[in-house]
Amino acid sequence: MRIGVLTAGGDCPGLNAVIRSVVHRATTGYDDEVIGFEDGFKGLLDGHYRPLDLNAVSGILARGGTILGSARMERARLSEAAENCVALQREYGLDALVPIGGEGTLTAARMLSDAGMPVVGVPKTIDNDISSTDRTFGFDTAVTVATEAMDRLKTTAESHQRVMVVEVMGRHAGWIALESGMAGGAHGICLPERPFDPADLVKMVEERFSRGKKFAVICVAEGAHPADGTMDYKKGEIDQYGHERFQGIGNRLAVELEKRLGKEARPVILGHVQRGGTPTAYDRVLATRFGWHAVEAVHRGDFGRMTALRGTDVRMVPLAEAVTQLKTVPEDRMEEAESVF
Amino acid sequence: MRIGVLTAGGDCPGLNAVIRSVVHRATTGYDDEVIGFEDGFKGLLDGHYRPLDLNAVSGILARGGTILGSARMERARLSEAAENCVALQREYGLDALVPIGGEGTLTAARMLSDAGMPVVGVPKTIDNDISSTDRTFGFDTAVTVATEAMDRLKTTAESHQRVMVVEVMGRHAGWIALESGMAGGAHGICLPERPFDPADLVKMVEERFSRGKKFAVICVAEGAHPADGTMDYKKGEIDQYGHERFQGIGNRLAVELEKRLGKEARPVILGHVQRGGTPTAYDRVLATRFGWHAVEAVHRGDFGRMTALRGTDVRMVPLAEAVTQLKTVPEDRMEEAESVF
Amino acid sequence: MRIGVLTAGGDCPGLNAVIRSVVHRATTGYDDEVIGFEDGFKGLLDGHYRPLDLNAVSGILARGGTILGSARMERARLSEAAENCVALQREYGLDALVPIGGEGTLTAARMLSDAGMPVVGVPKTIDNDISSTDRTFGFDTAVTVATEAMDRLKTTAESHQRVMVVEVMGRHAGWIALESGMAGGAHGICLPERPFDPADLVKMVEERFSRGKKFAVICVAEGAHPADGTMDYKKGEIDQYGHERFQGIGNRLAVELEKRLGKEARPVILGHVQRGGTPTAYDRVLATRFGWHAVEAVHRGDFGRMTALRGTDVRMVPLAEAVTQLKTVPEDRMEEAESVF
Amino acid sequence: MRIGVLTAGGDCPGLNAVIRSVVHRATTGYDDEVIGFEDGFKGLLDGHYRPLDLNAVSGILARGGTILGSARMERARLSEAAENCVALQREYGLDALVPIGGEGTLTAARMLSDAGMPVVGVPKTIDNDISSTDRTFGFDTAVTVATEAMDRLKTTAESHQRVMVVEVMGRHAGWIALESGMAGGAHGICLPERPFDPADLVKMVEERFSRGKKFAVICVAEGAHPADGTMDYKKGEIDQYGHERFQGIGNRLAVELEKRLGKEARPVILGHVQRGGTPTAYDRVLATRFGWHAVEAVHRGDFGRMTALRGTDVRMVPLAEAVTQLKTVPEDRMEEAESVF
Repeated sequence: MRIGVLTAGGDCPGLNAVIRSVVHRATTGYDDEVIGFEDGFKGLLDGHYRPLDLNAVSGILARGGTILGSARMERARLSEAAENCVALQREYGLDALVPIGGEGTLTAARMLSDAGMPVVGVPKTIDNDISSTDRTFGFDTAVTVATEAMDRLKTTAESHQRVMVVEVMGRHAGWIALESGMAGGAHGICLPERPFDPADLVKMVEERFSRGKKFAVICVAEGAHPADGTMDYKKGEIDQYGHERFQGIGNRLAVELEKRLGKEARPVILGHVQRGGTPTAYDRVLATRFGWHAVEAVHRGDFGRMTALRGTDVRMVPLAEAVTQLKTVPEDRMEEAESVF
Repeated sequence: MRIGVLTAGGDCPGLNAVIRSVVHRATTGYDDEVIGFEDGFKGLLDGHYRPLDLNAVSGILARGGTILGSARMERARLSEAAENCVALQREYGLDALVPIGGEGTLTAARMLSDAGMPVVGVPKTIDNDISSTDRTFGFDTAVTVATEAMDRLKTTAESHQRVMVVEVMGRHAGWIALESGMAGGAHGICLPERPFDPADLVKMVEERFSRGKKFAVICVAEGAHPADGTMDYKKGEIDQYGHERFQGIGNRLAVELEKRLGKEARPVILGHVQRGGTPTAYDRVLATRFGWHAVEAVHRGDFGRMTALRGTDVRMVPLAEAVTQLKTVPEDRMEEAESVF
Repeated sequence: MRIGVLTAGGDCPGLNAVIRSVVHRATTGYDDEVIGFEDGFKGLLDGHYRPLDLNAVSGILARGGTILGSARMERARLSEAAENCVALQREYGLDALVPIGGEGTLTAARMLSDAGMPVVGVPKTIDNDISSTDRTFGFDTAVTVATEAMDRLKTTAESHQRVMVVEVMGRHAGWIALESGMAGGAHGICLPERPFDPADLVKMVEERFSRGKKFAVICVAEGAHPADGTMDYKKGEIDQYGHERFQGIGNRLAVELEKRLGKEARPVILGHVQRGGTPTAYDRVLATRFGWHAVEAVHRGDFGRMTALRGTDVRMVPLAEAVTQLKTVPEDRMEEAESVF
Repeated sequence: MRIGVLTAGGDCPGLNAVIRSVVHRATTGYDDEVIGFEDGFKGLLDGHYRPLDLNAVSGILARGGTILGSARMERARLSEAAENCVALQREYGLDALVPIGGEGTLTAARMLSDAGMPVVGVPKTIDNDISSTDRTFGFDTAVTVATEAMDRLKTTAESHQRVMVVEVMGRHAGWIALESGMAGGAHGICLPERPFDPADLVKMVEERFSRGKKFAVICVAEGAHPADGTMDYKKGEIDQYGHERFQGIGNRLAVELEKRLGKEARPVILGHVQRGGTPTAYDRVLATRFGWHAVEAVHRGDFGRMTALRGTDVRMVPLAEAVTQLKTVPEDRMEEAESVF
């Protein structure tokens, strides 16, 4: 068989581990041929690809990023891909395509699948917000990086009697904020799922100070926002890449808290360090398992589906199911976190 | 309510996170009183305990070990505890006891429960070998430490054209070897569940050298052993603590491979570093959730059970169910690992 | 003897290691008594202090921050301290005062010393910009944190063909940028000591892209600034704490490069994570040695001086010498760094 | 110019950083050509080498090991090399040879230099025992790894009221034990430079237990040994690679202490993890500077010398001076360490 692999969307630790696993399983388990398309769907459309053998994936397990590159693509070109996908499949002699990516990529994968391409998807997002899978690789690494930062910030906050506002990734779902906030021992967590009232944070900080704990760490997802009427806030200017330049909620909230509390409040915007670099052991294992199961699915002809973690098992779930709804933080998980503030 | 907490058995990163979570939830969520027995069941029998309030658990989330201490106890004294447990309960005015521990502790917990003590268990083992829960806290930390060691050892092995044999923990179940071996990119994994043939390892190493990969890393669980007749091996002298002094399988296998291969093979015995120190973010979150749910179970009167991770949920499962059978590595998980050797 | 210790100025990993070392050496080596003033010179003036014995410093070696707290103090009150220092000395029964701090603290220490207080200083700054000592503790930790961030950012930059601008600490001296830039493999380093021309960075990035290296990481000290006329730049609004709110050079430079290059350029502002948390082994050793030598100096009556690293030795140097001139990055160190861009 | 580079002797984090720096400086600073001999002096004698350009050293800064490989060579062949070195120099068209290695390598380098080869040495040893340089790269990484292990072991020791004996590298000089022992907060340090009396360790542990600190960590260099008559000890069987198989001082001392104390004492032999893997920021900077200065020395014709750190400067020192005497731990450094036990 000839299997095509591509990585699309944002960076995510573990991508290389999937690629390596697909190549190992396909070539040593089945004598397949694997080719890797460069820069996501772009490579598929433009015919940029290279053969991937054991040597090509040697030493990449622990490396961040993706050896295949990744790039954004306009919707128009994706539709073009879907229309031509049978022709593309024939051109490259593909028996299966394994796209590794987030919600956008899996939606595209579904389009291709619907149009006749034999597709097995592998979900990827540091945000952990894809339905149908308990976890996605990359998420544990992001949480780990954010937790280590909070471990460091706590001592600074404590020594200087400061409030630290740590902004972590998560535009639409607050999983990273939830888990890194719990693991880092944050005293407040703000999620996109639940508009916050700055007055509650002020109260929490003042209570802490009043019982001698003269510092606080607040963990804020970049997509968190105040409840209507609770804070003078409008979203910052959005640049062409979808980022709120320098006026994100972390910076804003630190200013607001400083004003209300009359105490130093400092923002720390963790940014891209959360999504780069070597994956944690957890993410390497999950990514490797996803790669293995993707190849198995290819050989079973189990197309139009993607790998998913369910408990301790990796199973195949319909692509359709995975992309219809974002997996957000449920109220009871937030309640657990709040109890240890 | 008055809740007693104790930690028993071997060290495990995350114990303090559970204690902290129990105290937070019980005192801020319910206005309970929490006391901590020292050195496991010993403290329960000998009346050594101290009150645990928010201050007592401040700053311990990220700390390894257990602030309550832990000690082994003879079976005889445990039976004594079971016999007297209603008296003990009355003596301390306990509404519930939350023992945090591994198989032995949970078995003792069950004895106490059967004898009438209102018990909610929290499972703990770096070995991940407790049935009824997808994962135990401490395991991720152990795997992470072992993976980081293998990351380091690989470059040494490669530069010096050597075989490295890394012995990790796991006397009866090979989960740490399986996952750290996968994550660390080992070229061979030996588990207690499946006797190995040194000849297979020799063959693997020689194949690697023949295709220019002039090094190999083999990850061995301390409980792994050769298949009958494949290697001159008898278990080493067992000391009073149940350890095979300096003659463990890691050392033995390195000697054997060096002899058979005519190449340098070096053992590295990771030992206790795997079970000490700060827990990973994953383990802190899981431990915190277990603590929260234990308190909820106490308030629901849901006794004789323990917390368990099932998928993304924490549920209560009967203690009886948890301790009847060790959770070992199934064959298909080993097959996944082998594909990326 | 009775020795007073205080920590002043910004947070710096290793402060606790100095305190611990002073207490150990003084109490077990000499049978001295040690007291710790809280929140820097404030505690000295306000009489807030507590005895420090072995128990008080147990377990703090690896902890970031300072158990004594630290706070800014107005110059006026410092002068007041200097005027009253003989009275203060008598009041507390001090035989010596060991202030641990940066340039400001050491200047204050010198004032007290000139006014008659028996002072032995210990230099502290993550910026490494104190003359007369080869290195200060805290610096290695800051460089390590920044280097780990750059290690992570590189894979993101590479996978997405991006320019990353990493802003590190260093308002007046560029040591952190220099060493973390070298260690993190940055392709450009901007220091306060040498105004940069954005055109040079643009040229460097374009050259890299033209030879197939489609990413770049630029490490910028927060105090770096463009040469006159090279970039439309005015310093941002300075808040009451001396910080340029959200308009620092890292953010500005990323915008500028994106505009000039027509490629995505992303800023990452590392901020306070560089100065908090557990010190590196290097910093723990240096801090411990400084503490030891400070006590020795006290017992030799070697006042008005501070500890300093010279080669492999710790020596005492006059406070006067240490604070007259900032130690900045010399041109030849920058030349070394440039050769590996 | 045409410069040959080789790495010889044991693995050491930072080797690749030197190679990369030499190539960068030589090719972009001077338009030189660089070739790398494989597997140390072996490659020089056998003609195994390859050109090293910027691409060949891309991405290796943070990688452990050496891309050139390293191998032991018999003295006889080294003498052969020395005899033929002018012929070899002509054969490869070398203007200079830059061997990177430890004492053995530098001694060989001196032989070649004496025989007429234009040699610039770069010292390398994780043991930090080379005279004439304040520090060697690799040492900081080894100390860091050992310190992190001790951080982890302390919580285990404390929770279980145990004595942990940690054996670190250092056959002839105890620098790693000294500094990791200080940084890791060990309560006893045993160095090759000073035979120890187990009775002193027993006394220390008993004193600790008597004041409620019911655990201890002892850091032992692999070359440490008891003073005559203090312990029944003979060195273990030495294998062909110079290692004492499984009977090293760490294991022996743990058994001895357990016997004398009647308390659990556990050995942890850190072994090869200390010398592999990614170098610390400190080591990357030092290694990069050494590479830069080696090329400068070549261009100045400053042969028969090696790079050395003196204070904050890198200077050239005679090879002869560097290899005549091992740099061991002086008594006053040990005294500093003892004060914080």
